[in-house]
Amino acid sequence: VKIVTLLTDFGVVDTYVAQMKGVIYSLAPQCSVVDLTHAIAPQDIAAGAAALRDTAFLFPPGTVHVAVIDPGVGTDRRLMAAEVAGHFFVLPDNGLLSLLLEAYPLQGAVELTRAEFWRSTVSRTFHGRDILAPVAAQIVNGRTLAELGGAIGEIQRLAAPRWEKSHGGLAGVIVSVDHFGNAITNFPERLFVDFEVGASLCTVINGRELQWKWCTAYGFAPRQSPIALVGSNGCLELAINCGSAAAEFQLRAGDPVLIGNIKFSGER
Amino acid sequence: VKIVTLLTDFGVVDTYVAQMKGVIYSLAPQCSVVDLTHAIAPQDIAAGAAALRDTAFLFPPGTVHVAVIDPGVGTDRRLMAAEVAGHFFVLPDNGLLSLLLEAYPLQGAVELTRAEFWRSTVSRTFHGRDILAPVAAQIVNGRTLAELGGAIGEIQRLAAPRWEKSHGGLAGVIVSVDHFGNAITNFPERLFVDFEVGASLCTVINGRELQWKWCTAYGFAPRQSPIALVGSNGCLELAINCGSAAAEFQLRAGDPVLIGNIKFSGER
Amino acid sequence: VKIVTLLTDFGVVDTYVAQMKGVIYSLAPQCSVVDLTHAIAPQDIAAGAAALRDTAFLFPPGTVHVAVIDPGVGTDRRLMAAEVAGHFFVLPDNGLLSLLLEAYPLQGAVELTRAEFWRSTVSRTFHGRDILAPVAAQIVNGRTLAELGGAIGEIQRLAAPRWEKSHGGLAGVIVSVDHFGNAITNFPERLFVDFEVGASLCTVINGRELQWKWCTAYGFAPRQSPIALVGSNGCLELAINCGSAAAEFQLRAGDPVLIGNIKFSGER
Repeated sequence: VKIVTLLTDFGVVDTYVAQMKGVIYSLAPQCSVVDLTHAIAPQDIAAGAAALRDTAFLFPPGTVHVAVIDPGVGTDRRLMAAEVAGHFFVLPDNGLLSLLLEAYPLQGAVELTRAEFWRSTVSRTFHGRDILAPVAAQIVNGRTLAELGGAIGEIQRLAAPRWEKSHGGLAGVIVSVDHFGNAITNFPERLFVDFEVGASLCTVINGRELQWKWCTAYGFAPRQSPIALVGSNGCLELAINCGSAAAEFQLRAGDPVLIGNIKFSGER
Repeated sequence: VKIVTLLTDFGVVDTYVAQMKGVIYSLAPQCSVVDLTHAIAPQDIAAGAAALRDTAFLFPPGTVHVAVIDPGVGTDRRLMAAEVAGHFFVLPDNGLLSLLLEAYPLQGAVELTRAEFWRSTVSRTFHGRDILAPVAAQIVNGRTLAELGGAIGEIQRLAAPRWEKSHGGLAGVIVSVDHFGNAITNFPERLFVDFEVGASLCTVINGRELQWKWCTAYGFAPRQSPIALVGSNGCLELAINCGSAAAEFQLRAGDPVLIGNIKFSGER
Repeated sequence: VKIVTLLTDFGVVDTYVAQMKGVIYSLAPQCSVVDLTHAIAPQDIAAGAAALRDTAFLFPPGTVHVAVIDPGVGTDRRLMAAEVAGHFFVLPDNGLLSLLLEAYPLQGAVELTRAEFWRSTVSRTFHGRDILAPVAAQIVNGRTLAELGGAIGEIQRLAAPRWEKSHGGLAGVIVSVDHFGNAITNFPERLFVDFEVGASLCTVINGRELQWKWCTAYGFAPRQSPIALVGSNGCLELAINCGSAAAEFQLRAGDPVLIGNIKFSGER
């Protein structure tokens, strides 16, 4: 069974997502369509890129991932189909693959120009339904990228948020806040190998100094206490056990984070 | 693979939708159940009818569409199975097919009276799970409508909101407001064939005069500017590029819309 | 087709649910993954237990139900696979099966200890993705419970909320409030067999006396009037037809409910 995943900023109130599923199942009834999430903030390409990086390669090779965060719909921005690590991606060429391509090479990309693979009538505002969905079904049905359009040389890449050394500490950012109110940063696990359980991590966020106890799992901390740990995507996460760090400390995606007391293994 | 779609006003917090899926998969494990949306406002039959019209026929012929917006559950309102354009519909006879039947003829409808195709215990409050879901599975398994109950002559029809000429302009309505805050009206595309990109469309909504620039796609407009365009369902849509027209101008489904400066091709 | 259901407190904004689906489909591409709900309040094991009881056995025998409401993730709490009534459950041993086990015997349970069936790298915070999802796929693929780990004697059980006679009436609780604002209590249907349509049910909730008219279905009551009826899970439900009882009377899950005027058949 071939899988098609859908990632959009459409929400789940309207029927836009279902309209795409209808088109895909009409052309490729044997596939399974699976939602990644439809709750990407409208037009937030960076959040879409993070969702693809965190999720796409957990699916089986050959999966077709359709991503529709597409502020340029109807303009002359390119639509493309790309192959990365044996997975297929059907999406606008606007940076959605950026984070995933930091770890995996682009195996190929074509611009979607062959209208015979689209719906016969193409709206100006919903290319997800009218172009991307039918093209995804064509890939499920065995079409190669080369059949779908001409090769693209360079695709759009967004700069990922970086962390850096700063004033004897580290400067980074809150990449996202999840459903539990955990703030997920961009500091990778390797920076914290010397931290021991119970050690204190000192941060400055939005001008406010916050102390977090180092933990290996939420459940080890007292309820309602602020903790720091390595989250499931391998980056530093700031949390409150059985509470919401985001609500307690007004943390939001995009907030800069300074860590004051970290030492590098190599520097000691 | 046969597809069963579900359209309800149940939301996705409770397990009501999952209970229906369990019943369907128990009787027809080879089908795929797909959500249209479960965010129809409670008891909003008109919104359910619009969702069916916009989405159902994008799925493959033979799909079984189950719709549960059912304020009369447990009373003597009729439940029915109907066939339209080679698709099957299992739902209360309360107008949910009205908008779809404006473009396609009803091929047949039966009242669901044969209790041997229902769950053995039928609750008074959840016929979606106890009658509609098992009947949908029976259709997937090859039962004909005639096996499910006796033919219905006339089914319920709701009047669709109309547009009309009024004081030298047009009078219509906002049919829905989507996740992006776009206001989707009931003025069809053909009224605007003479509008050129950049032209100004003048509306009065809730006593307030609003100006919209005519566009062919969101991305062509400056960010935050009010635009008018033909949306993906072929009707006039009022939007703000990278913003929410609904939030900015307090637009809601049901609001009357007057267009002041439109000219008909035939009138010039 | 084998079915895997997912029940979590993850919400549907993040990609955590999709990450679990990716892992399951990678190992067992022939199964269908179905959502029960992901809107259980964070760490609310009792609500998860109610969702499993209301929903699991509507699916076909052999279904694998994965439940991740797991405040103890990463600590030494046990993960287990269990069999009840021919269904399989993969979840933490924290009481999630309690309500379901009031009606069905536990056929067997094993602690998940065989790491060769897990993802090769196991995070400290997301065992749903790294242990439970791959184990569920193994069961789909035909592994027996005995292959997954050693037998467990006693599993955790939570006390279900009870109703009791009190001061000549009944004392119980609001178990949940649904999407429609209906308050679902824990008083079973059999207590109300002598109630006739139109009779008045008198309750005290949060110190406030409330009168409800006994109905058999929402649609029989005047719009906006407070009604009491037996809901789809067989318990007393307090509702407002075409309105929200929860919003009108500030009802919440956990609120104690006193019924003042009920008589037992056996007592007359």
